[in-house]
Amino acid sequence: MYNTLLLPDLRLMIIENDEKAMQEFCEVLFPAVTAELLAELPPTDALTVLSQCPLERRAEIFGYLPLGFQITLVENMDRKPLSRLVQEMAADDRVDLLEKLDPNQVETLLPLIAQAERADIRRLLSYPEGSAGSIMTTEYASLPKSITVGEAFDRLRLQAPDRETIYYIYIIDDRRQLLGFISMRKLILAKPQQLLSEIMRNDVIYVKVDDDDEFVANELNRYGFIAIPVVDTENRLVGIVTHDDAADVLREEAEEDQHRLAAVEPLDDSYFSTSVFVLAQKRGFWLLFLLGASVFTAWVLQFFQGSGERGWIIMFLPLVMASGGNAGSQSAALVISALARDHARLRVIGTFHILTRELSLSLILGGTVASISFFCAWLLTGAIAPAIVVSTTVLLVVVMAAVTGAAMPIVIQSFDADPAYMSTPLIAAIVDVIGVIIYFNVAYLVFGNLPA
Amino acid sequence: MYNTLLLPDLRLMIIENDEKAMQEFCEVLFPAVTAELLAELPPTDALTVLSQCPLERRAEIFGYLPLGFQITLVENMDRKPLSRLVQEMAADDRVDLLEKLDPNQVETLLPLIAQAERADIRRLLSYPEGSAGSIMTTEYASLPKSITVGEAFDRLRLQAPDRETIYYIYIIDDRRQLLGFISMRKLILAKPQQLLSEIMRNDVIYVKVDDDDEFVANELNRYGFIAIPVVDTENRLVGIVTHDDAADVLREEAEEDQHRLAAVEPLDDSYFSTSVFVLAQKRGFWLLFLLGASVFTAWVLQFFQGSGERGWIIMFLPLVMASGGNAGSQSAALVISALARDHARLRVIGTFHILTRELSLSLILGGTVASISFFCAWLLTGAIAPAIVVSTTVLLVVVMAAVTGAAMPIVIQSFDADPAYMSTPLIAAIVDVIGVIIYFNVAYLVFGNLPA
Repeated sequence: MYNTLLLPDLRLMIIENDEKAMQEFCEVLFPAVTAELLAELPPTDALTVLSQCPLERRAEIFGYLPLGFQITLVENMDRKPLSRLVQEMAADDRVDLLEKLDPNQVETLLPLIAQAERADIRRLLSYPEGSAGSIMTTEYASLPKSITVGEAFDRLRLQAPDRETIYYIYIIDDRRQLLGFISMRKLILAKPQQLLSEIMRNDVIYVKVDDDDEFVANELNRYGFIAIPVVDTENRLVGIVTHDDAADVLREEAEEDQHRLAAVEPLDDSYFSTSVFVLAQKRGFWLLFLLGASVFTAWVLQFFQGSGERGWIIMFLPLVMASGGNAGSQSAALVISALARDHARLRVIGTFHILTRELSLSLILGGTVASISFFCAWLLTGAIAPAIVVSTTVLLVVVMAAVTGAAMPIVIQSFDADPAYMSTPLIAAIVDVIGVIIYFNVAYLVFGNLPA
Repeated sequence: MYNTLLLPDLRLMIIENDEKAMQEFCEVLFPAVTAELLAELPPTDALTVLSQCPLERRAEIFGYLPLGFQITLVENMDRKPLSRLVQEMAADDRVDLLEKLDPNQVETLLPLIAQAERADIRRLLSYPEGSAGSIMTTEYASLPKSITVGEAFDRLRLQAPDRETIYYIYIIDDRRQLLGFISMRKLILAKPQQLLSEIMRNDVIYVKVDDDDEFVANELNRYGFIAIPVVDTENRLVGIVTHDDAADVLREEAEEDQHRLAAVEPLDDSYFSTSVFVLAQKRGFWLLFLLGASVFTAWVLQFFQGSGERGWIIMFLPLVMASGGNAGSQSAALVISALARDHARLRVIGTFHILTRELSLSLILGGTVASISFFCAWLLTGAIAPAIVVSTTVLLVVVMAAVTGAAMPIVIQSFDADPAYMSTPLIAAIVDVIGVIIYFNVAYLVFGNLPA
């Protein structure tokens, strides 16, 4: 909602190269808001603005940028300023970034980073994607059990500036074994001379470093925690996962599930900022796989056919209808989850842009599926004419279905209803009837009449 | 994971009526864990255990029970102890409960509750479902701007015990206008003699009381906040929404979307604990609606038919296949989102139980859809025999599809893969080919041979 108001101002600052205004822009707004605005700019402009920020603030804003945008910026940065930025970033954010960079690039960066940070990065990088280790941060607050509450506050004041949270304090021994847990609330309510060992909770709920990240996020939510500690195989505290990172994991998982349910490979980026080419790959694989299944159905159907001359019409009916249903449900699922994540973006990008994108995308997908259908139909019927009818129909049906599937949720949303009502089966039902009409009309056009 | 280990002990305590053990059980475990175990017991047993807990702990545990279970317990409680429980519950939890109770019952309860709490309940109950007001809590920490940091700590110590969070402190004036915000971290780092007005942030990010709850949850996540303040139309602070409640909202929305995408009305409860009858309603509506669409497709198809005697075979092919695809994708979506939410429950309940449940459910759904198909086919063809073939096939296909749709995600999960790979289009593809075989075999059985 900020975007539409502040973007013109920001663009003006860049054109006029108004360094003071850019600096103010970085410092006044919440880092999350600044990041959202920068992500709307061309990468070089975003870098110009960021270079006006004090380093600490720059690292914070950078951490809020979408990962794909971070990578583009990194590719435009020199090694020296980049290493300073990486060193300053939050431990979990920078590992997310480094994981996506070329390993060689990471190796040239690391020597420029301070020893302690470097060791931390190497350790975090070693945890496999999708594990607790890969989403945790090492910036947690910890204290020994033998000190008093008063001393604890003094130490926490030192830890506070660079810890992800100081509201949950973990009690560890010399070997970093996790012994207990104290919330800031309890610490505030305790008497200054009490020992931490007297007030700490012994039965800490924790997860293991190789636990699945979705499990970790669910555990955190189950207890309503702000953070959950992560221990290694020897029960040593190695990190914490905070509630905001858990929320990200669950949102990504939900979105992945939604996409998979409609036979789309999960996207790395938001639907709005994914290119047509990448979308074609993520959807094409499944469309072709499902086409295979439809061809099999057609093959089975031929055994139930009489030897009627135009028996192929019925053979390919399921294939034609399934092609439409599949392409339409992919579009619908992508648009629906994109709207759920950020429906304000729709206004910035525009419905027309999305529909033209779906149109070009569906021409690629439809063209591919149609060509393969052509050969399958030719092979199964041994004649060219049915192959022409089937493939032309498939192309038209896929294009019609993809555009309908993308448009319907937007229409529903404009009536303030939940776009998810445009379900896969409903899209299939709408597309079925239009598909049938297209199929038989194409057959009419090619043959001039229809089979008896 | 606790359940399987502790449940037998708990059952023994109840049989032996071991009051001391039950009391310990309530106090030693985390309230969330105690609640999960109690939810596995018959309601009267759960009440027996709860009655051994101190009131405050009892209210806390109660708040973690699933809403449906809370309602069952309430129906078994006397007015007096119930009013004490409601008075002690967290402001947001109790309103969630009271919203689901019979308004008359709520009216008999309220007079037993202290004046201040009663006013709070009435105010929270007045916000419409799905609004920020309906998920917020009124138990937030607030301070005036004119006091020092040292005084702030003294006041927070008084507020701490019954506030949902004291880590975010909102600065308000006499008329409760929201002026600023201070995090506990900042407060700890400040000097005791500093004024709050000097260290507070003026540009508070807030939401309005009638904002959509999903929007509120997304705003909170966008900034990674622990809580977000809620103001009324006159900018007065009326509550806060905390990160754990925001996570619940987003999880429910994601689950609702997943269900809607597969044409299932969203469930109020978990799939595992929803009755066959309720499931039949939530799914039946959409199946019948989609059947209507298929009948329309059949009607359109007849215009493309020659006057061939058995032209109806092709007319009803899309209907038969869509019935299977729809029922199968409903089952798959329900099982997949249930597994994502809590796949440990599967082991407790057992795959066999789920499949027999789907079987009985699909007999109800399939029976209904088949009967209606019978009349539609009769009407459209004017003959009984096609109606018999179509309706018998629909029954068999729906049953086959529902059981396959429920079983496949469980099979995939057992190979440690993401069950969401069992997508709607994939289910439809599998069901298509089996459906076609069933259809023509039924036709063979009825007619002894097939149409040319």
